[in-house]
Amino acid sequence: MSASSRIRNPELLQRLMSAEAAAALIPNGAVVGMSGFTGAGYPKAIPTALAHRIRDLNGQGEKFRISIWTGASTAPELDGVLAEVDGIEMRLPFQSDPICRQRINDGRMDYIDIHLSEVSQYAWAGFLGKLDLAVIEVAGILEDGRLIPSSAVGNNKTWIEQADKIIIEVNDKQNAKLEGMHDIYYGTALPPNRKPIMITSPADRIGEQYLHCPLDKVIGVVETSAADRNSPFTPPDEVSKRIAGHILEFFEREIAAGRLPKELLPIQSGVGNIPNAVLEGLDAGPYKNLTAFTEVIQDGMLKMLKSGTLGVASATAFSLSPVAIEELNNNIDFYRERIILRQQDISNHPELARRLGVIAMNGLIEADIYGNVNSTHIMGSRMMNGIGGSGDFARNGYLSIFVTPSTAKNGSISAIVPMVSHVDHTEHDVKIIVTEQGLADLRGLSPRQRAHKIIQNCAHPAYRERLMDYFERACASGRGMHTPHLLGEALSWHQRYEENGQM
Amino acid sequence: MSASSRIRNPELLQRLMSAEAAAALIPNGAVVGMSGFTGAGYPKAIPTALAHRIRDLNGQGEKFRISIWTGASTAPELDGVLAEVDGIEMRLPFQSDPICRQRINDGRMDYIDIHLSEVSQYAWAGFLGKLDLAVIEVAGILEDGRLIPSSAVGNNKTWIEQADKIIIEVNDKQNAKLEGMHDIYYGTALPPNRKPIMITSPADRIGEQYLHCPLDKVIGVVETSAADRNSPFTPPDEVSKRIAGHILEFFEREIAAGRLPKELLPIQSGVGNIPNAVLEGLDAGPYKNLTAFTEVIQDGMLKMLKSGTLGVASATAFSLSPVAIEELNNNIDFYRERIILRQQDISNHPELARRLGVIAMNGLIEADIYGNVNSTHIMGSRMMNGIGGSGDFARNGYLSIFVTPSTAKNGSISAIVPMVSHVDHTEHDVKIIVTEQGLADLRGLSPRQRAHKIIQNCAHPAYRERLMDYFERACASGRGMHTPHLLGEALSWHQRYEENGQM
Ligand SMILES: CC(C)(COP(=O)(O)OP(=O)(O)OC[C@H]1O[C@@H](n2cnc3c(N)ncnc32)[C@H](O)[C@@H]1OP(=O)(O)O)[C@@H](O)C(=O)NCCC(=O)NCCS
Ligand SMILES: CC(C)(COP(=O)(O)OP(=O)(O)OC[C@H]1O[C@@H](n2cnc3c(N)ncnc32)[C@H](O)[C@@H]1OP(=O)(O)O)[C@@H](O)C(=O)NCCC(=O)NCCS
Repeated sequence: MSASSRIRNPELLQRLMSAEAAAALIPNGAVVGMSGFTGAGYPKAIPTALAHRIRDLNGQGEKFRISIWTGASTAPELDGVLAEVDGIEMRLPFQSDPICRQRINDGRMDYIDIHLSEVSQYAWAGFLGKLDLAVIEVAGILEDGRLIPSSAVGNNKTWIEQADKIIIEVNDKQNAKLEGMHDIYYGTALPPNRKPIMITSPADRIGEQYLHCPLDKVIGVVETSAADRNSPFTPPDEVSKRIAGHILEFFEREIAAGRLPKELLPIQSGVGNIPNAVLEGLDAGPYKNLTAFTEVIQDGMLKMLKSGTLGVASATAFSLSPVAIEELNNNIDFYRERIILRQQDISNHPELARRLGVIAMNGLIEADIYGNVNSTHIMGSRMMNGIGGSGDFARNGYLSIFVTPSTAKNGSISAIVPMVSHVDHTEHDVKIIVTEQGLADLRGLSPRQRAHKIIQNCAHPAYRERLMDYFERACASGRGMHTPHLLGEALSWHQRYEENGQM
Repeated sequence: MSASSRIRNPELLQRLMSAEAAAALIPNGAVVGMSGFTGAGYPKAIPTALAHRIRDLNGQGEKFRISIWTGASTAPELDGVLAEVDGIEMRLPFQSDPICRQRINDGRMDYIDIHLSEVSQYAWAGFLGKLDLAVIEVAGILEDGRLIPSSAVGNNKTWIEQADKIIIEVNDKQNAKLEGMHDIYYGTALPPNRKPIMITSPADRIGEQYLHCPLDKVIGVVETSAADRNSPFTPPDEVSKRIAGHILEFFEREIAAGRLPKELLPIQSGVGNIPNAVLEGLDAGPYKNLTAFTEVIQDGMLKMLKSGTLGVASATAFSLSPVAIEELNNNIDFYRERIILRQQDISNHPELARRLGVIAMNGLIEADIYGNVNSTHIMGSRMMNGIGGSGDFARNGYLSIFVTPSTAKNGSISAIVPMVSHVDHTEHDVKIIVTEQGLADLRGLSPRQRAHKIIQNCAHPAYRERLMDYFERACASGRGMHTPHLLGEALSWHQRYEENGQM
């Protein structure tokens, strides 16, 4: 089947062109809003064609760079190919590509790390400057020109509205039956014209199934036929299972104490090994009809929907293994009843995270003994991925849970340090920290009480004594007992690692 | 006039007692929720009577300590007297009392520094443990037992609902005509039962004028007759005026660029010299019918209401000089039409800060070259006041502006440092930093771009070169160019100050 059968609008069908021709429409210096969120729904052909063009130009001694705004991370076919030819001047709001990361940390690419819920309002408010072009993957085009979104919604609505010109990729490898799964809300506005967002349950639909698209702005349509680049699912390892175990026990205790309803509260979960272990644990437990109000639907959530553990999941994108995609495609009617894909300014909206009382579970790079969390920086300077949606959910949700193995790099790094080298989530916003060693419940504790809990419950035994020693000497220093620190030693663990490869 | 004429409920009139008798009802170890927000509406007599009792007990070798939850800061008659006799075991969520501060930093008092909007939900959710007693100042009691709130609402609604027992202070020095100024919203709930909060303008009223009070929980009523302890107004100094000037210019530019409407957006303003200078500047400008969605009404806001610059102000408390209180009392009918006092979980609600698009203006202690802000800690360890509502507004508002003189302690401290010694507002949440030197607009900038702006525009000339030198050497270090740092030097400015009294 050719993609053209998915382009039902005659006007747009006439603007069909090759990826190369479309890439040629992107000028040097352009600011381009692309689709794509966590390896789903990114344009499959134009970025690669553009990278080829840039390589050729570079060969002729010409520079060519664009700025790229997306939903979140994409795939090697977008971030990777363009970073490799040094084609990205500035990137926002999230990435996780190894080549991109290298360029950012080499100082050859500017990167702005923004809460994912806020990108769209920044663009609307003019805080980020002008958006020249949008390059958006869709699953199809209706007769009247409206667009069937693909496997991620992200910021597509905003890019289409804000860009001067639009290029559309129509991908026939995206299931045509995604149609109807999306909920695009056209009620957002800039203040003072904002209205309440009338969602009171993750299951609520408040929008439309399609993206509106001003046809006169569309300068090209490209057919593609390529699956999202999804990583295979790796079953949870021992450490992840232990972390999940602590969280599951915690949920039980909270339910018993009346601090959580027995259907819990809407779950938000980052992607990766630990969150998957938590989801598997929930699925094996007594839970029925839970809800998710989250950013991405990963493998574990499909399983939970299937088993009935999860009743409904709201997100902005999929992030599935090839096996899970097959499962989704084979049972798309079942899942369409239970999954809602929203634009990311709604999926991650602080108003909704607060109202629904989300239980936010996200990874961390390091936490300090007082409960400050670093999610983004390696040794204070090098960007890992970005804050993503973790702040949207952690800051405004009901419970913020941060998870990590207690050590990294074969034990040479302690994930619990005297002072984090960068702060993404402040002591005011971090309620629970969990490692395979245990769980530290920081609610209602002062900084020194937190230090005891975190060191005892979360630190790896190999580092526990030294952390306690730091804390005790800091207390004895006479420098101030609210948050005792030794300024000359606070970052010495990081410095030691940089110098000797061992904290 | 005796206060008893303000106690129109016969049942409660029978429970009238002395402050000493009421203080005797508070047991050792109790957790007590007291009224009080920024020096307004705190109980005037019972804390002092309790302090006397504690001093006597201490004299007999007995220990006596309670935990105190409030709205925010109170006054010497509450925090001061009780801290002085070492009567406070744990304090939350905000204080600014010198004796309290000393005890916290000496390690003799635990202090939990919580976003002011979140305290009430924490209490409801059981995150803070049980509340034994509420001690609440009111302006009067209706015949049916409902309470006329006084000059601050704060967390009073929650304390009354959550505490096992209630003691009421009825203060006849609070203007009886405050009646009708308050808007107490009884629609809050814990998730999953939360509903949208239907406020779309600071002027909207959604609640009732009175606090409900379960009479059977009231174990004592005390009459008082004492004004709020308010500090005199000091006219803005030169530095504050220059900071205000930069902000006012910025507003003009934003309006010209179409990024702000000409009525601005609802203003939130901290208290103190700089915010007052900004308010005076706005009042002298072309503005009409602005709105405020803020925490406290300070002198400048009354003036703006009077002149018509401000049309309406929503807050949770007053923080006025004696002169301004007189003005308020003399024209209370005028102000009652234009001021709404709400509970602090509504005045500071993230949902509302985001929807209304608040312009948040708050003070900072230090900012670093990458835009991280410390609002609470002196040299990383010693608590100043607390985060207060600054995070509620800065994180979810439309614009977050942080202000400070460029130096402290006669120039021996630079307010701009290589790395802040504590983070309350992350690089993701800080949009504008202003000192008397200038304004750094950080929107849409990567960390290194921010460093240039902050050093050039905000740092004091005496420190500018050294900051630039740090930044350049960090860039040259090869440690990572996203957020370049020298780990061994990042906190050395603070260390130098601690050792030599000079950064
Ligand atoms: C924090 C985060 C990087 C952890 O990722 P993860 O895949 O769960 O964790 P891993 O343990 O595999 O760590 C990832 C890498 O960081 C390294 N790392 C982890 N902790 C480290 C530390 N304290 N110091 C140095 N490196 C560390 C790991 O060694 C690993 O490196 P490698 O890729 O070279 O092997 C990830 O959760 C993240 O990007 N979070 C921010 C965004 C977010 O929270 N999104 C969710 C909202 S939906
Ligand atoms: C940050 C904050 C302390 C600044 O207070 P301020 O009164 O505007 O500023 P000042 O310049 O007078 O500073 C207050 C004190 O801190 C000291 N100080 C300021 N910057 C300092 C620094 N970088 N290092 C050490 N001390 C510093 C000042 O010297 C002064 O000390 P003093 O009382 O001994 O003279 C205050 O705004 C605050 O508490 N903010 C957090 C809560 C908040 O934002 N509330 C508003 C929400 S409604």
